[in-house]
Amino acid sequence: MVRFLTSGESHGKGLTVIVEGFPSGVSVSKEFVDGELRRRMAGYGRGGRMRIEADSAEFNSGVRFGKTLGSPICIHIKNLDYKNWKKIMSPFRGRLEEDKRILNPRPGHADLSGVLKRGAEDVRDILERASARETAARVAAGALAKLLIAAFDMSVKSYVTSIGHIRHQRKRFRSGLLTKDTDKDPLRMADEKASRMARNHISDAAKRGDSVGGSFEVLGFGVPPGLGDYTHWDKRLDGRLARALVSIPAIKGIEIGDAIDASRKGGVKVHDRIFAGPGSQLYFEKYRLPFRRKTNAAGGIEGGMSNGESLVVRCYMKPIPTLTVPLDTVSIHDYSQTEAVKERSDVCAVPAASVVGESMVALVLAECLTEKFGGDSLGDMLEAYESYLERICVKS
Amino acid sequence: MVRFLTSGESHGKGLTVIVEGFPSGVSVSKEFVDGELRRRMAGYGRGGRMRIEADSAEFNSGVRFGKTLGSPICIHIKNLDYKNWKKIMSPFRGRLEEDKRILNPRPGHADLSGVLKRGAEDVRDILERASARETAARVAAGALAKLLIAAFDMSVKSYVTSIGHIRHQRKRFRSGLLTKDTDKDPLRMADEKASRMARNHISDAAKRGDSVGGSFEVLGFGVPPGLGDYTHWDKRLDGRLARALVSIPAIKGIEIGDAIDASRKGGVKVHDRIFAGPGSQLYFEKYRLPFRRKTNAAGGIEGGMSNGESLVVRCYMKPIPTLTVPLDTVSIHDYSQTEAVKERSDVCAVPAASVVGESMVALVLAECLTEKFGGDSLGDMLEAYESYLERICVKS
Amino acid sequence: MVRFLTSGESHGKGLTVIVEGFPSGVSVSKEFVDGELRRRMAGYGRGGRMRIEADSAEFNSGVRFGKTLGSPICIHIKNLDYKNWKKIMSPFRGRLEEDKRILNPRPGHADLSGVLKRGAEDVRDILERASARETAARVAAGALAKLLIAAFDMSVKSYVTSIGHIRHQRKRFRSGLLTKDTDKDPLRMADEKASRMARNHISDAAKRGDSVGGSFEVLGFGVPPGLGDYTHWDKRLDGRLARALVSIPAIKGIEIGDAIDASRKGGVKVHDRIFAGPGSQLYFEKYRLPFRRKTNAAGGIEGGMSNGESLVVRCYMKPIPTLTVPLDTVSIHDYSQTEAVKERSDVCAVPAASVVGESMVALVLAECLTEKFGGDSLGDMLEAYESYLERICVKS
Amino acid sequence: MVRFLTSGESHGKGLTVIVEGFPSGVSVSKEFVDGELRRRMAGYGRGGRMRIEADSAEFNSGVRFGKTLGSPICIHIKNLDYKNWKKIMSPFRGRLEEDKRILNPRPGHADLSGVLKRGAEDVRDILERASARETAARVAAGALAKLLIAAFDMSVKSYVTSIGHIRHQRKRFRSGLLTKDTDKDPLRMADEKASRMARNHISDAAKRGDSVGGSFEVLGFGVPPGLGDYTHWDKRLDGRLARALVSIPAIKGIEIGDAIDASRKGGVKVHDRIFAGPGSQLYFEKYRLPFRRKTNAAGGIEGGMSNGESLVVRCYMKPIPTLTVPLDTVSIHDYSQTEAVKERSDVCAVPAASVVGESMVALVLAECLTEKFGGDSLGDMLEAYESYLERICVKS
Repeated sequence: MVRFLTSGESHGKGLTVIVEGFPSGVSVSKEFVDGELRRRMAGYGRGGRMRIEADSAEFNSGVRFGKTLGSPICIHIKNLDYKNWKKIMSPFRGRLEEDKRILNPRPGHADLSGVLKRGAEDVRDILERASARETAARVAAGALAKLLIAAFDMSVKSYVTSIGHIRHQRKRFRSGLLTKDTDKDPLRMADEKASRMARNHISDAAKRGDSVGGSFEVLGFGVPPGLGDYTHWDKRLDGRLARALVSIPAIKGIEIGDAIDASRKGGVKVHDRIFAGPGSQLYFEKYRLPFRRKTNAAGGIEGGMSNGESLVVRCYMKPIPTLTVPLDTVSIHDYSQTEAVKERSDVCAVPAASVVGESMVALVLAECLTEKFGGDSLGDMLEAYESYLERICVKS
Repeated sequence: MVRFLTSGESHGKGLTVIVEGFPSGVSVSKEFVDGELRRRMAGYGRGGRMRIEADSAEFNSGVRFGKTLGSPICIHIKNLDYKNWKKIMSPFRGRLEEDKRILNPRPGHADLSGVLKRGAEDVRDILERASARETAARVAAGALAKLLIAAFDMSVKSYVTSIGHIRHQRKRFRSGLLTKDTDKDPLRMADEKASRMARNHISDAAKRGDSVGGSFEVLGFGVPPGLGDYTHWDKRLDGRLARALVSIPAIKGIEIGDAIDASRKGGVKVHDRIFAGPGSQLYFEKYRLPFRRKTNAAGGIEGGMSNGESLVVRCYMKPIPTLTVPLDTVSIHDYSQTEAVKERSDVCAVPAASVVGESMVALVLAECLTEKFGGDSLGDMLEAYESYLERICVKS
Repeated sequence: MVRFLTSGESHGKGLTVIVEGFPSGVSVSKEFVDGELRRRMAGYGRGGRMRIEADSAEFNSGVRFGKTLGSPICIHIKNLDYKNWKKIMSPFRGRLEEDKRILNPRPGHADLSGVLKRGAEDVRDILERASARETAARVAAGALAKLLIAAFDMSVKSYVTSIGHIRHQRKRFRSGLLTKDTDKDPLRMADEKASRMARNHISDAAKRGDSVGGSFEVLGFGVPPGLGDYTHWDKRLDGRLARALVSIPAIKGIEIGDAIDASRKGGVKVHDRIFAGPGSQLYFEKYRLPFRRKTNAAGGIEGGMSNGESLVVRCYMKPIPTLTVPLDTVSIHDYSQTEAVKERSDVCAVPAASVVGESMVALVLAECLTEKFGGDSLGDMLEAYESYLERICVKS
Repeated sequence: MVRFLTSGESHGKGLTVIVEGFPSGVSVSKEFVDGELRRRMAGYGRGGRMRIEADSAEFNSGVRFGKTLGSPICIHIKNLDYKNWKKIMSPFRGRLEEDKRILNPRPGHADLSGVLKRGAEDVRDILERASARETAARVAAGALAKLLIAAFDMSVKSYVTSIGHIRHQRKRFRSGLLTKDTDKDPLRMADEKASRMARNHISDAAKRGDSVGGSFEVLGFGVPPGLGDYTHWDKRLDGRLARALVSIPAIKGIEIGDAIDASRKGGVKVHDRIFAGPGSQLYFEKYRLPFRRKTNAAGGIEGGMSNGESLVVRCYMKPIPTLTVPLDTVSIHDYSQTEAVKERSDVCAVPAASVVGESMVALVLAECLTEKFGGDSLGDMLEAYESYLERICVKS
């Protein structure tokens, strides 16, 4: 079963992720992983940090001659900015100077609760780890997961559905369109008019010292029925996706398929009827399910399992809580009234978060695949997968 | 650390839950647990099953003279209806008769994907476990969790915020009001006008053979700052709540605090400013945080941790997918077009789901408490908790 | 992945086990499970309790018409003795009478540390759960595991290798012999002379009020290479077996293969050389490994993985710490010197422990099989297994 | 709860470990961690590799100004030898040349089963990870664990009890002696005569091309009663130690206390009687248990919990399976008879393994401490620990 641990502070030496339980025989391209890291750094509304860093994955283990070995994969991502922070973030040398401490926690962040939890005397001890920079390590792990699921002809895509109050106006995307269009748009909306309006909205916010949230959709294509499980609550695919996505900083809400809209309608209208005839999804260029759907309000999940339709999860992101207009707060020194510290930050990070969302969904799918088809070698997994398709599909 | 496994089919002998990792010394009242089970069974719009069952918790282990021992707690809930199902659900005797098999999977359920996943030849092999009846076992476990957190002066409440398109019109509830009002209302809305309209809506749906979804809010009161963790993605409180709640059948979306609304606003307006002065929450009748908030858009969670404000999670439930107007489906026998089987069902189960939601939130909080304060005995936990309050609070 | 929780006190209502993650389609015979429970109760040197109980497995879920459903399997084993203990072990009614409390912890048991850990005022609160009676629930789970591995032509057997200082004198057993011989012997030694001497040894000890330990060997037959993993420490098969076996009450040491002997020899003599030619193990009546061994000092495990030879683990059991000659101890009331309480007990439980050992090994193997071959349905697992054999074996 | 993942191949770029769940506020000294790494590299009978490497811990995260932050701690250990292996172990560039492949698996190693499990075509794909070099990462993690338990006045020590058939002749060690004596002895036996004989034994073996095993004892000092748990099999301290130690390469057997000897004796003689009067262990220079023991046959564990006496676990190590006299094996190419490949190796690694054993025991204890006393900050943990001592001890 795929599991991973990440480490690293925002201005420390770098981020590391160890991915354990990955099968042998998966082709890995450093270019692809680096490309994913770059996708996370892009987007209109990002702050100065993104101009300093040029994230690149250093493979320390688990890959030989471009193939996974089955042993744990370690990826390290250097923080180029560390050279400017050595004195403040040194693991051993030196000590914290009184006047370098941060005492004013930012509302909306881990700052204050973290200080209480850990008994810290410097908010930096908390915010360095609570920073969204940590998600770069997840994207590296997610890139590996994407390479694994790609061997099963599966893919995960995303696009931004709203920036602030400005909503994307296009119908739900299909796999092909997503590939072509969304990464070209600086806000990953792939709706030119909405994107232009949203960029203006972000610029206005930046001028005011404000920040902007939004929403995005993550889609999974080529997913067969039966990933996840209805037999125990903690194995359900919907619950696992919910946890994985809500664990992304600033993501505070999710809906699978048309959840919110469906909660207002009658069941006759909501549920995705099943029809005879081969499904629209072609697995391995020859297998099709012996039934099809015309709708996908369920977002590809019924009874806690994938049902053969595309996975659709929409994520709601709050505006970034680091602001140029500092909010009221109290000092952790004496709890007197003051203003929040300002750390360098983005104005809007919804496009970046959508890339992190892809990573988390890919990781959940990779975990489900190794559960269902074993995880020792890609060859064995593919054989087990094809046996399964053979059992449940018709050939076309 | 509290962990639990549930078992049981909808029409089998009964449901069982084993809760492991529960501290010693917690007072347990069978009446309270049975009361929680009854709360799950109530609500306008429930089907015939709820008239047959009178769930009652049989304690098989872990409790002696009304106190937990620290050993695993086993609760069994008999299915009174089993006597009518012995022939169909026998563990050993007899065999499945051809004409008793269910071949027509219901859209919106685990039926079809489950049959494919497990290689089943009878949809009943799937639907019996995928049934929401399993949540009774969670409510029993959740009742234990409520008793544990009550020793920490913490509580979890809920109320229904919408039934179909009809929304509750009251401001967010406070702890006291919730206790008094919501259980009296047959839809747990505690908004008389909305509740009356919603009952009419359900009656109309019932007449049409349709079903109705909705939404509810689960609130946690008395929660100290620092439960959950920002240091690793899978320890975040928001992610864990999301998983626990989305794992409830038919819950397809959640938002923490005002997530969806916040995604449309600027950060200056959204984030909950922090002010000097004692907090409004009184812990153990003498401790208060040395700061306070006037708003709670974050729903009590910042940086993946509780922040000392009330927890607020809103859950979106799709309409029940068992309908008297059967939907189009295919036969699992030959994938020919047919209509879905009809199982006895409710028209609306939002009030019941809200009680299950309370249980899942209580279980997450119990897990967090044992992580943070140890879990061997309630006495030691309370001592550690009071040391923590002593460190982070002021006395009043 | 197979996981399970057990519950139950020694004189409470009964024991329960929930086994989650078990594939669908496995044939279950209640007679087999009950037979395993009886095997655990047998053996020369057992106390009076074994004459009171007649353990029988009540299936509450997960099995229908003799086949597993893939949903959690719940087995309950009634404590027939409970009727005599209702007043002392009541979950709710009554309260502990002062003079019924046990204050004198037994050396060698959980009693004293347990009281300190849980803050208990009655040693019974600890000893009821720390009792070896709990292993009946593991044997029930282990019986299910044996049924699963049997579908893969795998089996787990055991025999007693020593009772006190009296050692078994036969060479290591083969699968067939073990089936026939060991259960007939009241000490499971299947060495008539040693068994007779050992029975006398036990009788003598009983007269003196003493107890007797010993050792036993658990063997796994038909195990393919590649279960467990060398890639991460906590996935190694040897470590998992060690944990599973040392977790059995009174088992304080284990060796895999000829570990202790091997530690004294040179590597040239110890390691099991590999030879060309088909292996001696026949999988599914047609597959053989394309190599063979003439020795098995490694006990079937190299590099933390099964290697295709029989698994061999020897377990060392201390004498039971409940004695008729009570040992020195202190009162938990005031820590004054006193003598340990006497609870009804066996004089020697090595044969019983060997049956529990089989169960734990079977459970570890079941876990490894579901990891490697998926765990949704037996059919899919067997297909994946046969693909694997096809890849690594020659046909014969 | 402390968890960790390790990564790294023997001749790859380096080893990495991420330790997650470590409390904040623990003082970390790079010198101490490096010292532990050096202790693992020492010992008479080591091969040439140990002369090439000079392991040093590079802290990439989790520590600031010499204190842990509570965030994941990442330590990287460079493989200095990598510069000579770049062509063979490159993650991306180049490809495996036919004649560089290893085809002849070594008996006693993961080689053959690993190749079958992963579908590898080069034994190096397996042996690079299955190498004992991986234990350097565990020693780094274990050094952190030692620093944590030291804050609780606890320590873990070890010494070698036998090399081949030559046994250590001293009585069991006490804490102080172990510190002074064992590291000075090139075999960590601290029994001059035995050590001299053992060195001769190793030299002789080296000349013959043979290898040598042995045994060692790991001891835990200052451990309070109540770590681990009797309430569920997988929480028992003995089982967790067994797993942790048997997971060390070549460790194939363990016994807790005098397990093997005890299995041959009567209970009256074996069990450690309990006497009134303060215990010999002084916690925090002022607390003593209100009872004491005169013997410790149980090795400090009763009922799956620590009992306040010193932990004692003896580990049995097989001779290293890499030999200059190559053993019979088959080629993975065509399964024809051949001789095993020779990789550079040690003749005897028992002293190194004993240091790894300390690390694994320290990690288990660190895990148990965070379970019992919470794991957010060292300050809170110590406060909870002192409350516990206050409850169960007398002051002196």
